Amino acid sequence: MAWDTEGTRRRLLDAAVIEFAAGGFAATKVEAIAARAGVNKERLYNYFGDKKALWDLVLAAELGRLASAVRLSGAGLDDIGEFAGATFDYHAEHPQLARLLQWEGLQGGPPANAAERSIHYRDKVARFGIAQGEDAIDSRIDPDHLVFALIALAAWWQTVPQLAEMITGADGQDIDERARRRGFVVEAARRLSAPTKG
Amino acid sequence: MAWDTEGTRRRLLDAAVIEFAAGGFAATKVEAIAARAGVNKERLYNYFGDKKALWDLVLAAELGRLASAVRLSGAGLDDIGEFAGATFDYHAEHPQLARLLQWEGLQGGPPANAAERSIHYRDKVARFGIAQGEDAIDSRIDPDHLVFALIALAAWWQTVPQLAEMITGADGQDIDERARRRGFVVEAARRLSAPTKG
Repeated sequence: MAWDTEGTRRRLLDAAVIEFAAGGFAATKVEAIAARAGVNKERLYNYFGDKKALWDLVLAAELGRLASAVRLSGAGLDDIGEFAGATFDYHAEHPQLARLLQWEGLQGGPPANAAERSIHYRDKVARFGIAQGEDAIDSRIDPDHLVFALIALAAWWQTVPQLAEMITGADGQDIDERARRRGFVVEAARRLSAPTKG
Repeated sequence: MAWDTEGTRRRLLDAAVIEFAAGGFAATKVEAIAARAGVNKERLYNYFGDKKALWDLVLAAELGRLASAVRLSGAGLDDIGEFAGATFDYHAEHPQLARLLQWEGLQGGPPANAAERSIHYRDKVARFGIAQGEDAIDSRIDPDHLVFALIALAAWWQTVPQLAEMITGADGQDIDERARRRGFVVEAARRLSAPTKG
Protein backbone atom coordinates (compact mmCIF):
# COMPACT_ATOMS: atom_id res chain seq x y z
CA MET A 1 0.00 0.00 0.00
CA ALA A 2 1.39 3.40 -1.01
CA TRP A 3 1.43 6.24 1.50
CA ASP A 4 -1.24 8.75 0.62
CA THR A 5 0.82 11.71 1.77
CA GLU A 6 -1.36 14.47 0.30
CA GLY A 7 -4.54 12.85 1.62
CA THR A 8 -3.06 12.48 5.09
CA ARG A 9 -1.92 16.10 5.18
CA ARG A 10 -5.37 17.21 4.06
CA ARG A 11 -7.10 15.09 6.73
CA LEU A 12 -4.80 16.49 9.41
CA LEU A 13 -5.43 20.08 8.32
CA ASP A 14 -9.20 19.54 8.22
CA ALA A 15 -9.07 18.02 11.70
CA ALA A 16 -6.93 20.90 12.93
CA VAL A 17 -9.44 23.50 11.66
CA ILE A 18 -12.25 21.75 13.56
CA GLU A 19 -10.31 21.31 16.79
CA PHE A 20 -8.71 24.77 16.83
CA ALA A 21 -12.03 26.48 15.98
CA ALA A 22 -13.74 24.59 18.79
CA GLY A 23 -11.16 25.09 21.52
CA GLY A 24 -8.61 27.69 20.47
CA PHE A 25 -4.85 27.26 20.38
CA ALA A 26 -4.06 26.84 24.07
CA ALA A 27 -6.69 24.24 24.99
CA THR A 28 -6.37 22.09 21.86
CA LYS A 29 -4.23 18.97 22.15
CA VAL A 30 -2.20 17.71 19.19
CA GLU A 31 -3.40 14.22 20.17
CA ALA A 32 -7.02 15.25 19.57
CA ILE A 33 -6.19 16.53 16.06
CA ALA A 34 -4.25 13.37 15.19
CA ALA A 35 -7.03 11.16 16.58
CA ARG A 36 -9.73 13.00 14.63
CA ALA A 37 -7.71 12.55 11.43
CA GLY A 38 -7.03 8.90 12.25
CA VAL A 39 -3.31 9.55 11.98
CA ASN A 40 -0.43 8.82 14.27
CA LYS A 41 0.71 11.86 16.33
CA GLU A 42 4.32 11.41 15.21
CA ARG A 43 3.31 11.80 11.57
CA LEU A 44 1.59 15.06 12.43
CA TYR A 45 4.84 16.36 13.94
CA ASN A 46 6.76 15.10 10.90
CA TYR A 47 4.48 16.93 8.50
CA PHE A 48 3.89 20.18 10.33
CA GLY A 49 6.47 20.68 13.06
CA ASP A 50 4.90 21.79 16.32
CA LYS A 51 1.39 22.91 17.34
CA LYS A 52 2.18 26.58 16.79
CA ALA A 53 3.33 25.93 13.22
CA LEU A 54 0.11 24.01 12.58
CA TRP A 55 -2.02 26.83 14.05
CA ASP A 56 -0.25 29.38 11.82
CA LEU A 57 -0.80 27.17 8.79
CA VAL A 58 -4.49 26.67 9.58
CA LEU A 59 -5.12 30.38 10.02
CA ALA A 60 -3.23 31.22 6.82
CA ALA A 61 -5.14 28.55 4.90
CA GLU A 62 -8.56 29.67 6.16
CA LEU A 63 -7.81 33.35 5.46
CA GLY A 64 -6.50 32.33 2.05
CA ARG A 65 -9.77 30.54 1.28
CA LEU A 66 -11.73 33.69 2.17
CA ALA A 67 -9.44 35.86 0.03
CA SER A 68 -9.86 33.50 -2.94
CA ALA A 69 -13.63 33.26 -2.55
CA VAL A 70 -14.39 36.96 -2.06
CA ARG A 71 -12.75 39.60 -4.20
CA LEU A 72 -13.42 43.26 -4.85
CA SER A 73 -14.54 42.97 -8.46
CA GLY A 74 -14.48 46.60 -9.56
CA ALA A 75 -13.89 50.13 -8.41
CA GLY A 76 -17.20 51.59 -7.33
CA LEU A 77 -19.64 51.80 -4.43
CA ASP A 78 -21.79 48.94 -5.75
CA ASP A 79 -18.68 46.76 -5.90
CA ILE A 80 -17.88 47.56 -2.26
CA GLY A 81 -21.46 46.75 -1.27
CA GLU A 82 -21.34 43.44 -3.11
CA PHE A 83 -17.95 42.64 -1.59
CA ALA A 84 -19.41 43.18 1.90
CA GLY A 85 -22.42 40.98 1.11
CA ALA A 86 -20.20 38.20 -0.21
CA THR A 87 -17.99 38.44 2.89
CA PHE A 88 -21.11 38.18 5.06
CA ASP A 89 -22.19 35.05 3.11
CA TYR A 90 -18.74 33.53 3.47
CA HIS A 91 -18.68 33.99 7.25
CA ALA A 92 -22.23 32.64 7.57
CA GLU A 93 -21.20 29.52 5.67
CA HIS A 94 -17.79 29.13 7.33
CA PRO A 95 -18.29 30.00 11.02
CA GLN A 96 -14.94 28.46 11.89
CA LEU A 97 -13.08 31.46 10.44
CA ALA A 98 -14.65 34.01 12.80
CA ARG A 99 -13.99 31.60 15.67
CA LEU A 100 -10.29 31.33 14.77
CA LEU A 101 -10.01 35.13 14.66
CA GLN A 102 -11.81 35.39 18.01
CA TRP A 103 -9.43 32.92 19.59
CA GLU A 104 -6.52 34.91 18.26
CA GLY A 105 -7.99 38.04 19.85
CA LEU A 106 -8.71 36.39 23.20
CA GLN A 107 -5.30 34.76 23.38
CA GLY A 108 -3.47 38.02 22.70
CA GLY A 109 0.14 38.16 21.62
CA PRO A 110 1.46 38.61 18.11
CA PRO A 111 -0.79 37.40 15.27
CA ALA A 112 0.05 34.37 13.15
CA ASN A 113 1.80 35.18 9.84
CA ALA A 114 1.91 38.89 10.71
CA ALA A 115 4.15 39.95 7.83
CA GLU A 116 2.14 38.29 5.04
CA ARG A 117 -1.18 39.38 6.48
CA SER A 118 -0.04 42.98 6.93
CA ILE A 119 1.02 43.10 3.27
CA HIS A 120 -2.31 41.55 2.23
CA TYR A 121 -4.27 44.16 4.21
CA ARG A 122 -2.14 47.05 2.98
CA ASP A 123 -2.92 46.02 -0.58
CA LYS A 124 -6.60 45.64 0.25
CA VAL A 125 -6.77 49.08 1.87
CA ALA A 126 -5.18 50.60 -1.23
CA ARG A 127 -7.74 48.95 -3.53
CA PHE A 128 -10.65 50.10 -1.36
CA GLY A 129 -9.27 53.62 -1.31
CA ILE A 130 -9.38 53.62 -5.13
CA ALA A 131 -12.92 52.18 -5.11
CA GLN A 132 -14.07 55.00 -2.81
CA GLY A 133 -13.04 57.50 -5.44
CA GLU A 134 -9.91 59.58 -5.38
CA ASP A 135 -11.78 62.87 -5.78
CA ALA A 136 -13.41 62.35 -2.37
CA ILE A 137 -10.07 61.95 -0.65
CA ASP A 138 -10.63 64.77 1.87
CA SER A 139 -14.19 63.90 2.94
CA ARG A 140 -14.25 60.12 2.79
CA ILE A 141 -13.79 57.68 5.64
CA ASP A 142 -10.17 56.51 5.85
CA PRO A 143 -9.94 53.33 3.80
CA ASP A 144 -8.17 51.33 6.52
CA HIS A 145 -11.03 51.94 8.93
CA LEU A 146 -13.48 51.18 6.15
CA VAL A 147 -11.86 47.78 5.52
CA PHE A 148 -11.80 47.01 9.25
CA ALA A 149 -15.48 48.00 9.60
CA LEU A 150 -16.55 45.86 6.65
CA ILE A 151 -14.98 42.82 8.30
CA ALA A 152 -16.76 43.72 11.57
CA LEU A 153 -20.15 44.06 9.86
CA ALA A 154 -19.68 40.75 8.03
CA ALA A 155 -18.31 38.69 10.94
CA TRP A 156 -19.95 40.16 14.08
CA TRP A 157 -23.07 38.04 13.59
CA GLN A 158 -21.00 34.87 13.93
CA THR A 159 -18.98 36.34 16.78
CA VAL A 160 -21.90 37.11 19.12
CA PRO A 161 -24.81 35.07 17.75
CA GLN A 162 -26.83 35.23 20.96
CA LEU A 163 -26.59 39.03 20.99
CA ALA A 164 -27.71 39.07 17.35
CA GLU A 165 -30.71 36.93 18.21
CA MET A 166 -31.71 39.02 21.25
CA ILE A 167 -31.49 42.27 19.26
CA THR A 168 -33.10 41.14 16.01
CA GLY A 169 -35.53 38.68 17.59
CA ALA A 170 -34.60 36.03 15.03
CA ASP A 171 -32.10 33.23 14.62
CA GLY A 172 -29.36 33.59 12.01
CA GLN A 173 -30.47 30.28 10.48
CA ASP A 174 -33.84 31.81 9.60
CA ILE A 175 -33.76 32.36 5.82
CA ASP A 176 -35.69 35.63 5.83
CA GLU A 177 -33.60 37.08 8.64
CA ARG A 178 -30.38 36.02 6.95
CA ALA A 179 -31.46 37.80 3.77
CA ARG A 180 -32.42 40.89 5.79
CA ARG A 181 -29.03 40.87 7.53
CA ARG A 182 -27.23 40.53 4.20
CA GLY A 183 -29.23 43.42 2.77
CA PHE A 184 -28.24 45.52 5.76
CA VAL A 185 -24.54 44.69 5.37
CA VAL A 186 -24.59 45.69 1.68
CA GLU A 187 -26.41 48.95 2.43
CA ALA A 188 -24.12 49.73 5.38
CA ALA A 189 -21.03 49.16 3.21
CA ARG A 190 -22.40 51.54 0.56
CA ARG A 191 -23.09 54.22 3.15
CA LEU A 192 -19.64 53.89 4.73
CA SER A 193 -17.87 54.00 1.36
CA ALA A 194 -19.73 56.95 -0.10
CA PRO A 195 -18.08 60.35 -0.36
CA THR A 196 -19.53 62.69 2.26
CA LYS A 197 -22.41 64.77 1.03
CA GLY A 198 -23.00 68.35 2.10
CA MET B 1 -14.45 41.43 64.05
CA ALA B 2 -17.70 42.01 62.16
CA TRP B 3 -18.21 40.21 58.85
CA ASP B 4 -17.82 42.66 55.99
CA THR B 5 -20.47 40.99 53.86
CA GLU B 6 -20.81 43.69 51.20
CA GLY B 7 -17.05 44.04 50.89
CA THR B 8 -16.62 40.29 50.51
CA ARG B 9 -19.33 40.06 47.86
CA ARG B 10 -17.70 42.95 46.01
CA ARG B 11 -14.27 41.33 46.15
CA LEU B 12 -15.68 38.05 44.87
CA LEU B 13 -17.49 39.76 42.00
CA ASP B 14 -14.40 41.75 41.02
CA ALA B 15 -12.34 38.56 41.08
CA ALA B 16 -14.98 36.74 39.02
CA VAL B 17 -14.91 39.46 36.33
CA ILE B 18 -11.14 39.12 36.02
CA GLU B 19 -11.11 35.30 35.96
CA PHE B 20 -14.11 34.89 33.64
CA ALA B 21 -12.81 37.55 31.22
CA ALA B 22 -9.43 35.81 31.11
CA GLY B 23 -10.58 32.22 30.69
CA GLY B 24 -14.28 32.12 29.86
CA PHE B 25 -16.94 30.18 31.74
CA ALA B 26 -15.88 26.61 31.05
CA ALA B 27 -12.17 26.87 31.88
CA THR B 28 -12.51 29.07 34.96
CA LYS B 29 -12.39 27.33 38.32
CA VAL B 30 -14.44 28.59 41.26
CA GLU B 31 -11.35 27.96 43.39
CA ALA B 32 -9.38 30.48 41.34
CA ILE B 33 -12.03 33.16 41.85
CA ALA B 34 -12.20 32.51 45.60
CA ALA B 35 -8.40 32.52 45.88
CA ARG B 36 -8.09 35.80 43.97
CA ALA B 37 -10.64 37.38 46.33
CA GLY B 38 -8.91 35.87 49.37
CA VAL B 39 -12.18 34.22 50.36
CA ASN B 40 -13.09 30.68 51.25
CA LYS B 41 -14.72 28.73 48.39
CA GLU B 42 -17.69 27.74 50.57
CA ARG B 43 -18.55 31.39 51.21
CA LEU B 44 -18.60 31.97 47.45
CA TYR B 45 -21.14 29.16 47.08
CA ASN B 46 -23.16 30.55 49.99
CA TYR B 47 -23.29 34.02 48.45
CA PHE B 48 -23.83 33.18 44.80
CA GLY B 49 -24.99 29.61 44.39
CA ASP B 50 -23.08 27.82 41.63
CA LYS B 51 -20.60 28.92 38.95
CA LYS B 52 -23.33 29.45 36.35
CA ALA B 53 -25.27 31.78 38.65
CA LEU B 54 -22.08 33.77 39.27
CA TRP B 55 -21.35 33.98 35.52
CA ASP B 56 -24.89 35.27 34.87
CA LEU B 57 -24.50 37.84 37.63
CA VAL B 58 -21.13 39.03 36.33
CA LEU B 59 -22.41 39.45 32.79
CA ALA B 60 -25.54 41.28 34.00
CA ALA B 61 -23.45 43.56 36.21
CA GLU B 62 -20.94 44.42 33.46
CA LEU B 63 -23.69 45.07 30.90
CA GLY B 64 -25.50 47.16 33.52
CA ARG B 65 -22.37 49.28 34.05
CA LEU B 66 -22.19 49.94 30.30
CA ALA B 67 -25.90 50.83 30.15
CA SER B 68 -25.52 53.27 33.07
CA ALA B 69 -22.37 54.86 31.67
CA VAL B 70 -23.52 55.31 28.07
CA ARG B 71 -26.98 56.60 27.24
CA LEU B 72 -28.64 57.95 24.14
CA SER B 73 -29.07 61.53 25.27
CA GLY B 74 -31.42 62.88 22.64
CA ALA B 75 -33.25 62.05 19.47
CA GLY B 76 -31.10 63.06 16.54
CA LEU B 77 -28.22 61.92 14.34
CA ASP B 78 -25.63 63.78 16.40
CA ASP B 79 -26.89 62.01 19.50
CA ILE B 80 -26.50 58.62 17.81
CA GLY B 81 -22.98 59.54 16.74
CA GLU B 82 -22.05 60.62 20.25
CA PHE B 83 -23.61 57.47 21.69
CA ALA B 84 -21.43 55.35 19.40
CA GLY B 85 -18.31 57.32 20.36
CA ALA B 86 -19.05 56.93 24.07
CA THR B 87 -19.64 53.19 23.59
CA PHE B 88 -16.28 52.96 21.80
CA ASP B 89 -14.61 54.77 24.73
CA TYR B 90 -16.28 52.47 27.23
CA HIS B 91 -15.09 49.32 25.47
CA ALA B 92 -11.57 50.73 25.09
CA GLU B 93 -11.46 51.40 28.83
CA HIS B 94 -13.19 48.17 29.89
CA PRO B 95 -11.82 45.44 27.61
CA GLN B 96 -13.24 42.75 29.90
CA LEU B 97 -16.77 43.38 28.62
CA ALA B 98 -15.99 42.53 24.99
CA ARG B 99 -14.11 39.47 26.24
CA LEU B 100 -17.12 38.25 28.23
CA LEU B 101 -19.36 38.68 25.18
CA GLN B 102 -16.82 36.84 23.04
CA TRP B 103 -16.72 33.93 25.45
CA GLU B 104 -20.48 33.80 25.40
CA GLY B 105 -20.39 33.61 21.62
CA LEU B 106 -17.67 30.97 21.50
CA GLN B 107 -19.33 28.83 24.13
CA GLY B 108 -22.67 28.82 22.34
CA GLY B 109 -25.91 27.88 24.02
CA PRO B 110 -28.52 30.22 25.45
CA PRO B 111 -27.30 33.63 26.65
CA ALA B 112 -27.18 34.63 30.30
CA ASN B 113 -30.22 36.59 31.51
CA ALA B 114 -31.90 36.26 28.11
CA ALA B 115 -35.29 37.66 29.14
CA GLU B 116 -34.00 40.87 30.78
CA ARG B 117 -31.47 41.51 28.04
CA SER B 118 -34.05 41.00 25.28
CA ILE B 119 -36.32 43.56 26.94
CA HIS B 120 -33.41 45.97 27.33
CA TYR B 121 -32.51 45.64 23.65
CA ARG B 122 -36.11 45.94 22.47
CA ASP B 123 -36.38 49.22 24.35
CA LYS B 124 -33.04 50.40 22.94
CA VAL B 125 -34.09 49.55 19.37
CA ALA B 126 -37.30 51.54 19.85
CA ARG B 127 -35.40 54.60 21.08
CA PHE B 128 -32.94 54.42 18.18
CA GLY B 129 -35.82 54.11 15.74
CA ILE B 130 -37.20 57.38 17.08
CA ALA B 131 -33.78 59.04 16.92
CA GLN B 132 -33.46 58.01 13.25
CA GLY B 133 -36.57 60.06 12.51
CA GLU B 134 -40.01 58.61 11.93
CA ASP B 135 -40.44 60.37 8.57
CA ALA B 136 -37.63 58.27 7.11
CA ILE B 137 -39.27 55.02 8.13
CA ASP B 138 -39.34 53.55 4.61
CA SER B 139 -35.79 54.37 3.57
CA ARG B 140 -33.84 54.06 6.79
CA ILE B 141 -31.79 51.10 8.00
CA ASP B 142 -33.85 48.88 10.31
CA PRO B 143 -33.16 50.11 13.85
CA ASP B 144 -32.40 46.62 15.23
CA HIS B 145 -29.62 46.16 12.69
CA LEU B 146 -28.44 49.69 13.40
CA VAL B 147 -28.13 48.94 17.13
CA PHE B 148 -26.31 45.68 16.43
CA ALA B 149 -23.91 47.42 14.04
CA LEU B 150 -23.14 50.21 16.51
CA ILE B 151 -22.09 47.61 19.08
CA ALA B 152 -19.95 45.90 16.43
CA LEU B 153 -18.22 49.14 15.46
CA ALA B 154 -17.56 50.03 19.10
CA ALA B 155 -16.39 46.59 20.30
CA TRP B 156 -14.68 44.99 17.26
CA TRP B 157 -11.40 46.77 18.01
CA GLN B 158 -11.18 44.98 21.37
CA THR B 159 -12.37 41.71 19.86
CA VAL B 160 -9.64 41.36 17.22
CA PRO B 161 -6.91 43.80 18.29
CA GLN B 162 -4.20 42.15 16.19
CA LEU B 163 -6.35 42.48 13.07
CA ALA B 164 -6.96 46.15 13.93
CA GLU B 165 -3.23 46.72 14.25
CA MET B 166 -2.37 44.93 11.00
CA ILE B 167 -5.00 46.90 9.06
CA THR B 168 -4.46 50.35 10.58
CA GLY B 169 -0.72 49.98 11.11
CA ALA B 170 -1.05 51.31 14.67
CA ASP B 171 -1.63 50.02 18.15
CA GLY B 172 -4.93 50.83 19.89
CA GLN B 173 -2.95 52.30 22.81
CA ASP B 174 -1.54 54.98 20.51
CA ILE B 175 -3.37 58.18 21.47
CA ASP B 176 -3.60 59.60 17.94
CA GLU B 177 -4.84 56.32 16.51
CA ARG B 178 -7.39 55.93 19.28
CA ALA B 179 -8.77 59.40 18.53
CA ARG B 180 -8.85 58.58 14.81
CA ARG B 181 -10.72 55.34 15.52
CA ARG B 182 -13.21 57.16 17.73
CA GLY B 183 -13.78 59.77 15.04
CA PHE B 184 -14.44 57.01 12.54
CA VAL B 185 -16.97 55.29 14.83
CA VAL B 186 -18.89 58.56 15.33
CA GLU B 187 -18.93 59.29 11.60
CA ALA B 188 -19.92 55.70 10.75
CA ALA B 189 -22.81 55.84 13.25
CA ARG B 190 -24.06 59.09 11.67
CA ARG B 191 -23.91 57.59 8.18
CA LEU B 192 -25.75 54.44 9.23
CA SER B 193 -28.46 56.38 11.06
CA ALA B 194 -29.15 58.96 8.38
CA PRO B 195 -32.27 58.75 6.24
CA THR B 196 -31.35 57.58 2.74
CA LYS B 197 -30.69 60.35 0.29
CA GLY B 198 -31.72 60.22 -3.33
